[in-house]
Amino acid sequence: MRYKCIVSYKGNAYVGFQSQINGLAIQDVIEEKLKIIFREDIRIVIASRTDAHVHAKGQVFHFDAREIDTYKLKGSLNGLLPKDIHIRDIEIVADDFHCRYLSRGKWYRYLINIGEYDPLLDGLAYQCFYKVDVAKMIEASKLFIGKHDFSAFNTTPKSEKEDQVREIYSFDILRKGDLLIIDVKGDGFLRHMVRILVGTLLDVARGRKSISDVQAMLEDKEKEVLRFNIDACGLYLMQIYY
Amino acid sequence: MRYKCIVSYKGNAYVGFQSQINGLAIQDVIEEKLKIIFREDIRIVIASRTDAHVHAKGQVFHFDAREIDTYKLKGSLNGLLPKDIHIRDIEIVADDFHCRYLSRGKWYRYLINIGEYDPLLDGLAYQCFYKVDVAKMIEASKLFIGKHDFSAFNTTPKSEKEDQVREIYSFDILRKGDLLIIDVKGDGFLRHMVRILVGTLLDVARGRKSISDVQAMLEDKEKEVLRFNIDACGLYLMQIYY
Repeated sequence: MRYKCIVSYKGNAYVGFQSQINGLAIQDVIEEKLKIIFREDIRIVIASRTDAHVHAKGQVFHFDAREIDTYKLKGSLNGLLPKDIHIRDIEIVADDFHCRYLSRGKWYRYLINIGEYDPLLDGLAYQCFYKVDVAKMIEASKLFIGKHDFSAFNTTPKSEKEDQVREIYSFDILRKGDLLIIDVKGDGFLRHMVRILVGTLLDVARGRKSISDVQAMLEDKEKEVLRFNIDACGLYLMQIYY
Repeated sequence: MRYKCIVSYKGNAYVGFQSQINGLAIQDVIEEKLKIIFREDIRIVIASRTDAHVHAKGQVFHFDAREIDTYKLKGSLNGLLPKDIHIRDIEIVADDFHCRYLSRGKWYRYLINIGEYDPLLDGLAYQCFYKVDVAKMIEASKLFIGKHDFSAFNTTPKSEKEDQVREIYSFDILRKGDLLIIDVKGDGFLRHMVRILVGTLLDVARGRKSISDVQAMLEDKEKEVLRFNIDACGLYLMQIYY
């Protein structure tokens, strides 16, 4: 049977979703608990790697194992998992379902606190200690919408660079009190791309870059640029579309 | 000089605001940092004791010490304090200002997640695992508004019981997605009172108590009642009014 799972997690304690040599990944924890339940090694396939400290509301993974009632499986798994990881949904899917290859798009959210430091948002939002021009941020964000070559907005090593054209469906910035809620939806994202897009907007918001600098970054793909790769702790993988 | 300070904190790591023998209190941490700055023992006076794990957006305390520029003092203090405690404001007040005696009212907030468990709300909201009737909660909450003897809704030992009449100015329950935001404003609150009021409403919401049971608790002050003293981690001291 192939199982598709939707998982939410608080990323602060982990080196990321995918197993790595340098520390505990969320994948390690989930595979360990699946082994307890199925009594065999289970390897999960991830829809989207998230970096260290990044959170998720709707990450997706799939795996193959013998049939267990999904309601019971969800209960057992959540009973074994730590408090910062929670399986929201499990369903049995077709054997040829693939959580990564079949994904049609993703929704990321980034939270920025532009007011007084709030201890209750520590690890959950980026704390901005300087004055920002939100209207300028919104103006610059419009440049990202649509199909663009995002070569200047990611950290994938040049040797691995293939096609770096991605389509951003929407880029919304909402201010709620002192909190900026930035929602980015697109067909796919390169390494650190969302964080660099948001970091670039903050550079615009504080006057370090102009709108035309951003335009030039989008057009002049080969130029080496100073990119602001903003903290991971404000980033949330909200949903993967199929 | 008398200093009035507004402080916000994440309460999870502490035994409460006030110093106690059983662990680290927020007061201990603040007094330790004030000693470093003023090079003498400083004793702070608290507006409102908060229990272990309770959070605050607007707790107030005052203390006496020699004059230091309040802007610099705020910066030094926040530089020394850990990430879960933050001084929002410091001002010099009259020598006869008293943060507790002069308080005219308080605003508490309680957060309840009535949807799927969310790892990102762990320690920040009460997770409700049963179905609740929000309309019934709102109906029952109206009974609390106004001046009442809240003897059945606190845990102060009987020997210490004096006047237990308190006035609740407003009791608002707002549903935002799966989150219930409960705002209670009143002239003062007895020990565990907000948590017991909210716990009682949840008993109503799940059918364990009727509206008339709640009415009887308010009228029949001497009767021993089973009270549901709900988790501290969903409680926030929002503001103290002067």
